[in-house]
Amino acid sequence: MTASPRNFIDRVFFGFQNTATLKAALELDVFTAIGNGVMDADALAAKCDAVPRGIAALCDSLVVMGFLTKSGAGYALAEDAAVFLDRSSPACIAGIHEFLAAPEFIELVFRDPAGAVRRGGAEGLANVSPDNPIWIRFARAMGPFMAPDAKMVADHAGDPAPKKVLDIAASHGLFGIAFGRRFPECQVTGLDWGAVVAVARENAAAAGMAERYNTIVGSAFEKVPWGEGYDLVLLPNFLHHFDRAACTGLLRRARAALAPGGRVAIIEWIPNEDRVSPPAPALFAMTMVLTTPKGTTYTAVELAAMLADAEFGTPTVIPLIPTPLTLVLSHGV
Amino acid sequence: MTASPRNFIDRVFFGFQNTATLKAALELDVFTAIGNGVMDADALAAKCDAVPRGIAALCDSLVVMGFLTKSGAGYALAEDAAVFLDRSSPACIAGIHEFLAAPEFIELVFRDPAGAVRRGGAEGLANVSPDNPIWIRFARAMGPFMAPDAKMVADHAGDPAPKKVLDIAASHGLFGIAFGRRFPECQVTGLDWGAVVAVARENAAAAGMAERYNTIVGSAFEKVPWGEGYDLVLLPNFLHHFDRAACTGLLRRARAALAPGGRVAIIEWIPNEDRVSPPAPALFAMTMVLTTPKGTTYTAVELAAMLADAEFGTPTVIPLIPTPLTLVLSHGV
Repeated sequence: MTASPRNFIDRVFFGFQNTATLKAALELDVFTAIGNGVMDADALAAKCDAVPRGIAALCDSLVVMGFLTKSGAGYALAEDAAVFLDRSSPACIAGIHEFLAAPEFIELVFRDPAGAVRRGGAEGLANVSPDNPIWIRFARAMGPFMAPDAKMVADHAGDPAPKKVLDIAASHGLFGIAFGRRFPECQVTGLDWGAVVAVARENAAAAGMAERYNTIVGSAFEKVPWGEGYDLVLLPNFLHHFDRAACTGLLRRARAALAPGGRVAIIEWIPNEDRVSPPAPALFAMTMVLTTPKGTTYTAVELAAMLADAEFGTPTVIPLIPTPLTLVLSHGV
Repeated sequence: MTASPRNFIDRVFFGFQNTATLKAALELDVFTAIGNGVMDADALAAKCDAVPRGIAALCDSLVVMGFLTKSGAGYALAEDAAVFLDRSSPACIAGIHEFLAAPEFIELVFRDPAGAVRRGGAEGLANVSPDNPIWIRFARAMGPFMAPDAKMVADHAGDPAPKKVLDIAASHGLFGIAFGRRFPECQVTGLDWGAVVAVARENAAAAGMAERYNTIVGSAFEKVPWGEGYDLVLLPNFLHHFDRAACTGLLRRARAALAPGGRVAIIEWIPNEDRVSPPAPALFAMTMVLTTPKGTTYTAVELAAMLADAEFGTPTVIPLIPTPLTLVLSHGV
């Protein structure tokens, strides 16, 4: 018999404990403290203002989780941690736990998971309630994670060079800003709730394109006009919050806002047609059941059908490797 | 470059989400509902009183996690789930989430993980506070998980047949009860807090050994006498809550309670000397930092040193495969 209770114990208990372990590691900034060197628990404890016994338990767990290596008593960064968790690395995404493991998020996910499955979604509007402050946290924390995706999208959707881009639910604004950076003539408009789009405006100013960055304050579902004549309408990480009817409605508005020959660019967690691979997009459907009333993930085939309903042509599907996101590009027909 | 943010996203977010997913699955009892058959989301939704869209997201996540398989639209149990999560299986441990993912536990682990690392332990007494109700939950939920370990311990520590066994921090009482089941002459005494040892008494009655099961109500650290002349003193899942001085004190009391030739049996999460393997015992040191003021895991070498200090001989170390626990047996010298 090969059956073992280990996977179950791992998932039911160490799953959430390991999230807390990473939160502790990032708050104490142990990855930056170790940097490119090798440190033992005593040296690291002194550097992180903690006791060696706490640091040793923390770092041993981080070894098990694959973020550190251990040789004798010395800890060093594993490759992923060196690239993504050391704050001196340009690709550092260490801050994303401030959104992904935010207390509000953990509370929402654990509130009543069985009830969410019974209903097919969270009770009430949950994460999609108007002006929910979680999205300010998202805009502040998730920029570094989205930056490589934003750059890849500007690479893939940059021919012909767009002169006028609309970024729906812009959040941190990085997807629109990537076009502004790449195309010095490009005017970018970000739409989001007031307190959220303020973060996009800050990021646009930091990118030196304040005078080319416009904002529309409001919800994508309200009557606030989107304008027209855009070469590109971006829908980054947005459709998964809603059901098909709502998504198709958004795509129709995007279609109406495009100049002739314009395109929509959807950036999404897209599972394969089996819905159980790749792992992260496959798990993301449950994220939507736990945190939104009607959200889910859509496969490429489902997105193509919604696009067709909104008068778009057959899409091009481009996985944004090594991130878990996928770009779907489609021309209006 | 092979670096990918996927492990980090997986751990920081899906780690805790997957715990909630398993909670939902166990509360809806989807594993028992599937049983030995194959079911699609519609049939399963009808059986579990949930909507298909919720069940599909749940089951697709359970496929990613290795507890279900999927072929076309049909879900079936993976081997681990058939053995451990289907309530009609005799080895089912589905209820352990009621302790391991209890709201109190999740709250404690996420309260201030960085602070726990800084101090080297939880603030206050946390899980080891007197009469903490979490241990009633433990006693009720964790019995099925400990049953195979209890049986293996009675197998390994049953020669010569013990006539008088003391079970310290007995909880569900299953370790002592395993000796009572195996040896019809054996008298068993369980020590634990009043509300907890009541669970042990219930379990002893259910095993038909009520008249051979005695209890001592109190804490192992109070002056309540342990009695004497025991052939075996059990310390199951107890030492990891305390520091070395406290553990050595407990072992000395165990030594004093033994008859000549008597033994102590420690059941523990024991990491290898590198402290980063095997995974579950290695992660368990962090569990103790997050949930107790001074607890940790001890290696076999460390336990041997504490045993020597308490006048025990060189221990025999027996991993209780396939569970993550290890038995350490030692004679008084």
